[in-house]
Amino acid sequence: MTVKAIGAPAADKPFEPLAITRREPGAHDVAIKIAYCGVCHSDLHMARDEWGGALYPCVPGHEIVGHVTAVGAHVTKFKVGDTVGVGCMVDSCQHCPSCEEGLEQYCTGEGSFTGTYNAPTPDAPGYTMGGYSESIVVSENFVLRVNHKPEQLAAAAPLLCAGITTWSPLRHWNAGPGKKVGIVGIGGLGHMGVKLARALGAHTVAFTTSESKREAALALGAHEVIVSKNEDEMAAHAGSFDFILNTVAASHNLDPFVALLKRDGTLTLVGAPEHPHPSPAVFNLIFSRRSIAGSLIGGIAETQEMLDFCAEHGITSDIEMIAASQIDEAYDRMLKGDVRYRFVIDSATLG
Amino acid sequence: MTVKAIGAPAADKPFEPLAITRREPGAHDVAIKIAYCGVCHSDLHMARDEWGGALYPCVPGHEIVGHVTAVGAHVTKFKVGDTVGVGCMVDSCQHCPSCEEGLEQYCTGEGSFTGTYNAPTPDAPGYTMGGYSESIVVSENFVLRVNHKPEQLAAAAPLLCAGITTWSPLRHWNAGPGKKVGIVGIGGLGHMGVKLARALGAHTVAFTTSESKREAALALGAHEVIVSKNEDEMAAHAGSFDFILNTVAASHNLDPFVALLKRDGTLTLVGAPEHPHPSPAVFNLIFSRRSIAGSLIGGIAETQEMLDFCAEHGITSDIEMIAASQIDEAYDRMLKGDVRYRFVIDSATLG
Repeated sequence: MTVKAIGAPAADKPFEPLAITRREPGAHDVAIKIAYCGVCHSDLHMARDEWGGALYPCVPGHEIVGHVTAVGAHVTKFKVGDTVGVGCMVDSCQHCPSCEEGLEQYCTGEGSFTGTYNAPTPDAPGYTMGGYSESIVVSENFVLRVNHKPEQLAAAAPLLCAGITTWSPLRHWNAGPGKKVGIVGIGGLGHMGVKLARALGAHTVAFTTSESKREAALALGAHEVIVSKNEDEMAAHAGSFDFILNTVAASHNLDPFVALLKRDGTLTLVGAPEHPHPSPAVFNLIFSRRSIAGSLIGGIAETQEMLDFCAEHGITSDIEMIAASQIDEAYDRMLKGDVRYRFVIDSATLG
Repeated sequence: MTVKAIGAPAADKPFEPLAITRREPGAHDVAIKIAYCGVCHSDLHMARDEWGGALYPCVPGHEIVGHVTAVGAHVTKFKVGDTVGVGCMVDSCQHCPSCEEGLEQYCTGEGSFTGTYNAPTPDAPGYTMGGYSESIVVSENFVLRVNHKPEQLAAAAPLLCAGITTWSPLRHWNAGPGKKVGIVGIGGLGHMGVKLARALGAHTVAFTTSESKREAALALGAHEVIVSKNEDEMAAHAGSFDFILNTVAASHNLDPFVALLKRDGTLTLVGAPEHPHPSPAVFNLIFSRRSIAGSLIGGIAETQEMLDFCAEHGITSDIEMIAASQIDEAYDRMLKGDVRYRFVIDSATLG
């Protein structure tokens, strides 16, 4: 099956239209016509080979929503016409302890989980290609049901990565009523973190480096906004947070945030910086039994839980729709932080 | 009440005999004749002003065991003749959330808890003086019962700091049957960590940088010993530990230990390095939802729990007894790691 896509032919080349191959759906597969695909910063890292190991042509995209066009003989969960999503994973070993607990993102099987793009696969061309394309074929175990209204579908796409990457740690560290929760960085991930923490019932505080983002963060649902460069404002909240989710991947000093945690509080990082953060002060950890932790996307079961919660609460991402031909420009704007808060490709524009 | 002690007259001067003042026991106080006092590395840091803020003359010592010689009118828990201990704290606010939960070491009242030495107090000379002395007067809320046999008393002294500092995190992070627990550094704290983790039922693994300590670590109760400089030995244990307690305060690379943790595992630090550790790799945290945490001594209730557990299981520290006059030499040997594993001052030698 040959389908239209856009891909980067090399790390330093602009995107171009491609014809790529999708496998025929197997007995357990679901074929999906992609309606929209979100644009994640990871897409840019991979397309430009900033992590190393990128394979070309590179077709990124792991915030996929669309409709089922065919199902394999043994598929039980989906039927033609269903509205579905695909996130960062399209397969995993399915039998290691993490997979058995529904935490496929921590799969300890050989090669860990299969990423939606740039991961080894038996299908041509030997590595996975993502959602910047007309369609995709995925094992039903990695397909999610999307219950949002049709007009919300494009804005639901980023839930598949930005949504679950913030939902999973918020749930794991018990964000909810009676808890004071901080979200550091108000971008693609952070703006979802604010919406989700608020909807989960936590007292939600947004941290931003820029006074100019204060109103926007309040509009997203933050109860309070702290400009993290303002030392007095930070000091007023010392030792008061149960949990802080840090979505900023750029190297920065973690200590001012650790100092805001209560005893037994946790600062969780969801971005890995290219250059290391300054080494966190150990006394900040020791004197209040605080933790610094990390979290990676989320499992399939909790992704479904998050999608259902969001559909029920009318939660979507704030997006700017683009045509496929605008992807290079969108990457450049994303690098400048010039997006509120996620670009989404309208797959109808693939040509 | 004037009593004999030894103290450092200045950061760069040897210890010398002193006469110091102890308050008359108040209504809630217990007066204790000190039998033995352990020598903790913190004592050296303070006596030599390595943390700054040391007050002179400085009388360290917070691993105190002895016998009750007098009690105040309202004291209910102790009577004259009881065998008791005093650890790192002699007071706290008693009404903050941490104090109310029995975690006085994390007291958030004004000035935090009152340390056993070098902390502000209304008593002369305005700061606390520790256990390198004949006697001490302490609020009954900070006095512990010691049920060890009389001949075990000297070796029980280090439980009051080295014991509780390892016990509290082992308990908090659920070291016990079915868990694989590592102890990094086999010194004053680490040797207690090995004994306690083993007695709590965990599969106990000692990490040491030195092949020469392998037999000694097994003798302490470790099921296995890993020489942390041996990369092959480390790699064989990747992703297998539930919890690792790191007792090494010197700056070192934490990443090889983080990589040994299972998903959701925690590396807990109990020592603050003078120079920062290299910044831990964030991807190590993210890819298995691991944590790096800190822990500070332990609360009074859990200290009593630990002492009772140790008395019941016959657990003490491995000690070398010294006379008060040998303290400078003991510090020098401690700096070289030349002690297995804790010096204890025989208070009868105070003169």
